[in-house]
Amino acid sequence: MECTPTFLRARRPEQKQQRYDAIRAAARELALERGVRSVSLGDIATAVGVHKSAILRYFETREEIYLSLGAEAWSDWSDAVHAELDGVVDGSPLLLADVLSRTLGERPLLCDLLTQAPLNLERHVSKGAVRSFKVSVLDGVEELAALIGRVVPGIGPERGFEAVAAIACQAASIWQVSHPSSALADLYSEEPELARACPEFVPTIHRFTLVYVTGLLATAD
Amino acid sequence: MECTPTFLRARRPEQKQQRYDAIRAAARELALERGVRSVSLGDIATAVGVHKSAILRYFETREEIYLSLGAEAWSDWSDAVHAELDGVVDGSPLLLADVLSRTLGERPLLCDLLTQAPLNLERHVSKGAVRSFKVSVLDGVEELAALIGRVVPGIGPERGFEAVAAIACQAASIWQVSHPSSALADLYSEEPELARACPEFVPTIHRFTLVYVTGLLATAD
Repeated sequence: MECTPTFLRARRPEQKQQRYDAIRAAARELALERGVRSVSLGDIATAVGVHKSAILRYFETREEIYLSLGAEAWSDWSDAVHAELDGVVDGSPLLLADVLSRTLGERPLLCDLLTQAPLNLERHVSKGAVRSFKVSVLDGVEELAALIGRVVPGIGPERGFEAVAAIACQAASIWQVSHPSSALADLYSEEPELARACPEFVPTIHRFTLVYVTGLLATAD
Repeated sequence: MECTPTFLRARRPEQKQQRYDAIRAAARELALERGVRSVSLGDIATAVGVHKSAILRYFETREEIYLSLGAEAWSDWSDAVHAELDGVVDGSPLLLADVLSRTLGERPLLCDLLTQAPLNLERHVSKGAVRSFKVSVLDGVEELAALIGRVVPGIGPERGFEAVAAIACQAASIWQVSHPSSALADLYSEEPELARACPEFVPTIHRFTLVYVTGLLATAD
């Protein structure tokens, strides 16, 4: 019988990198299937084909794996927004609403992690790991803030920061209510008068962004 | 040795009501001390002085206890906002920001439950229990929406609904980031340049409400 190669300990640097990538890929895949909340370290280990202890050579906890995916998802979102807005000089609140709501809707893992990070993930890692996540996300927010401040006349980086923070916070909450459990989804289809409690994600974030950015301009000195 | 009365089974209706109230009071107290996320059914049982099985005669799960406290907290918030705004006829976005941010800041359990309900609690109860919670919260949102729609000229009940929903969603996210774990709080005090990631709750919700309601008025047809 042959030895299953995935169960061997990764020793060479390129093997280590492969193992590290495989852990993150499995964690991402499982979270997209069933939500970050429902994925355990054991599930990730099974999907990679290793024992849990092998994962702990690369990450402190399952939470650290998801914080690392969260930092990457922020930077990927930021790249997508840059790609659409970098050339714009006279952007409107409506353009921002179009771009931000669509690019967020295309990133379910980011949206799920927006809630999971402060609520659960940041509470189960070392100070070093949470610091590295916070620095990375703050950099991401500030970069997007500068972009928005430049693209929409009258906003500037300070109000741009408020816009990014408010939209990310709103997306975190709306993602959870717009993706109910299957029992709750059944209830909504049985009683359509309750469906107001389950808004659709992209249109809700679109409308929110339009209203909030319009408000930022209207309250500007 | 005397029998400890709290360990006896509650049999008469008034004893049952007392037991029911004692369970909810203990769950509330523990959540205010350490956050909803950290309270187990066993913790509640210990605080009441009964076995876990005695609690399950009154509630399906710990989540049902907290959903019932959540419904009560919404209605208590609604009463507080009514008490301040019922007599107002020409209210401004600034007045709404004052009243809503202050009354939310005075209700830490409500703010914690705003996130916990969709993320965790609603997923671990029967369809009947989640239905009863949803109906009660939707009624609460619609009542506050009607009040805001009446108090601020030009808003109306539809935009009032948007305002209540957006403010509650924002409060849910901001509550979590403004109440970090002790490890994260240490990090913020060591590195003040990271403190932007930890906004203060009441001023942030005040500013958010002012901007959002101003935006609702500015985007009105």
